[in-house]
Amino acid sequence: MTYRGPEVAAIVGAGVVGRSWIRVYARAGFLTRVHDPDAGQLARAIGWAVRSAEEDVRLGFLTREEARAEESRILPCETLGDAVAGAGYVQESGPEAIATKRAIYRELDRAASDDVILASSTSANDMSVISEGVAGAHRCIVAHPVNPPHVIPVVEVLPGEKTDPRVVAATLDLLRRVGMLPVEMNRFVPGFLLNRMQAAVVREAISLVGSGVASPEAVEMVMRDGLGLRWALMGPFGTGHSNSDGGVGRYYRDYGDAFSGLWGDLDTEPDFGDEVIDGIAAATRAAYGDGSVPALSAWRDRMIRRILRLKREDPPPG
Amino acid sequence: MTYRGPEVAAIVGAGVVGRSWIRVYARAGFLTRVHDPDAGQLARAIGWAVRSAEEDVRLGFLTREEARAEESRILPCETLGDAVAGAGYVQESGPEAIATKRAIYRELDRAASDDVILASSTSANDMSVISEGVAGAHRCIVAHPVNPPHVIPVVEVLPGEKTDPRVVAATLDLLRRVGMLPVEMNRFVPGFLLNRMQAAVVREAISLVGSGVASPEAVEMVMRDGLGLRWALMGPFGTGHSNSDGGVGRYYRDYGDAFSGLWGDLDTEPDFGDEVIDGIAAATRAAYGDGSVPALSAWRDRMIRRILRLKREDPPPG
Repeated sequence: MTYRGPEVAAIVGAGVVGRSWIRVYARAGFLTRVHDPDAGQLARAIGWAVRSAEEDVRLGFLTREEARAEESRILPCETLGDAVAGAGYVQESGPEAIATKRAIYRELDRAASDDVILASSTSANDMSVISEGVAGAHRCIVAHPVNPPHVIPVVEVLPGEKTDPRVVAATLDLLRRVGMLPVEMNRFVPGFLLNRMQAAVVREAISLVGSGVASPEAVEMVMRDGLGLRWALMGPFGTGHSNSDGGVGRYYRDYGDAFSGLWGDLDTEPDFGDEVIDGIAAATRAAYGDGSVPALSAWRDRMIRRILRLKREDPPPG
Repeated sequence: MTYRGPEVAAIVGAGVVGRSWIRVYARAGFLTRVHDPDAGQLARAIGWAVRSAEEDVRLGFLTREEARAEESRILPCETLGDAVAGAGYVQESGPEAIATKRAIYRELDRAASDDVILASSTSANDMSVISEGVAGAHRCIVAHPVNPPHVIPVVEVLPGEKTDPRVVAATLDLLRRVGMLPVEMNRFVPGFLLNRMQAAVVREAISLVGSGVASPEAVEMVMRDGLGLRWALMGPFGTGHSNSDGGVGRYYRDYGDAFSGLWGDLDTEPDFGDEVIDGIAAATRAAYGDGSVPALSAWRDRMIRRILRLKREDPPPG
């Protein structure tokens, strides 16, 4: 069996992550069939996708014609069966509860024809567990995006024990074709790659505040106006590479003891009690404004797209 | 005693960090006196600062007139005494070895008049230790930049035990006046804030590669094309804030168990042996090109300045 490149995608589950996937596929020219068991959520997701494309016109990321064409490729579907009929690829973004996920995969496996890839947006579950007892476990895979996927290109791709290697290859290829940057993981670990690295920072950040070393504002600024400016351009290895004329190998050998020493000093179980959380919450509200979360997210999203544009216009040398 | 706002800065130590500080002060309108005990290094630093300003003209960050004015404010000084004569603020960027630092501070304390702040770029030492036995320990302080400071605005400001609180306030004020974003720390911890958060990520990144979970490329991309795009805009707390309609307080309470669970699973002592380092080094060279470190650093620096410009043009709401 060969896995065909699909031109129809099915989005199953239309919450915050699912609705953003609608835009990824529709924008890339795929006919995008969308289902959610909650009809109200389905309608809201379609409305959001249309408004979001129109906002992109206003911001100069799309032409009006491109936005109209994108909108015309979105098809709400009342049933899961309708959504997957004719789709070559299913992106599932349902609830994380493992019983729900398993039920969805049984249903998807019955509804979708044999050569259709069933990809999950799960950030928490192992496909080996989700697809236990699913006949088509070989075509099930994790494709975990960074929220929101229509803005942030990375997707963590992670096979289950039974996933066919050709499904892995076809998923990576498909995601690249729709403009994403898939990264392949070799095996499941809790939190995958991104949430583990994020958790490592959050733990130390909370520790630095909770132990009185610095204020929440100070910790926030050190990332936002320091470390994060580098990490938007190069990851931890590229950053080390650019810090030494001998590259990252030399850098790690020269500073290996400094790193090990620091690792031994980092907190592993910071105070994560109410007082620390309340202090962080108050400082963060003060920094970014009260009740501003939707405006802040919208700002973040348009700024990320501008940064990505800068990176496209002037890519790294080499 | 009041600490006057200086209009003359002395840069003592003109290596990679010191030479970048030259540009910070000269660009901001300060007469910038520069000393390094190695005359060759001093000459190279001055040459670098001039070329760097001219490169800024080419990139559109400065006008030709601004660059000329900046260059005219740089004065190389043969002796440390010459450099600090008339300076209101000294930024020291000498070698990290504690004996050397102590010797420099004794000499600076003798040479500089009473109301002059002596700030160290140290990333490793505690000012309480550096200034032991220095009569003017009250005017000594750490002002640790992120390299290179003429590009990245954050500076970690950290008093020693004897530092006068007015020196802390005046240092913060001065750094803001030259366009930096100083963050105040309450007490010394190894690595300060930035290098601790960086070390937390590097440890987990190395672990994920060394344990075979993913390739160096995958880990690098997850930061560069995912997590880092957010962190260039908001730190760990702002990122959590933007992820929940109830803000970061609600976010930490909703996902507290998930965070704690992940913290318990993170590696504390990753394999940091030759094989892992060589694998990371080879992948990083392949990604960014062989022998490209200077070109890569130059790219990073101009891209960071463009990101900072985007942030100035469209600041966060609230």
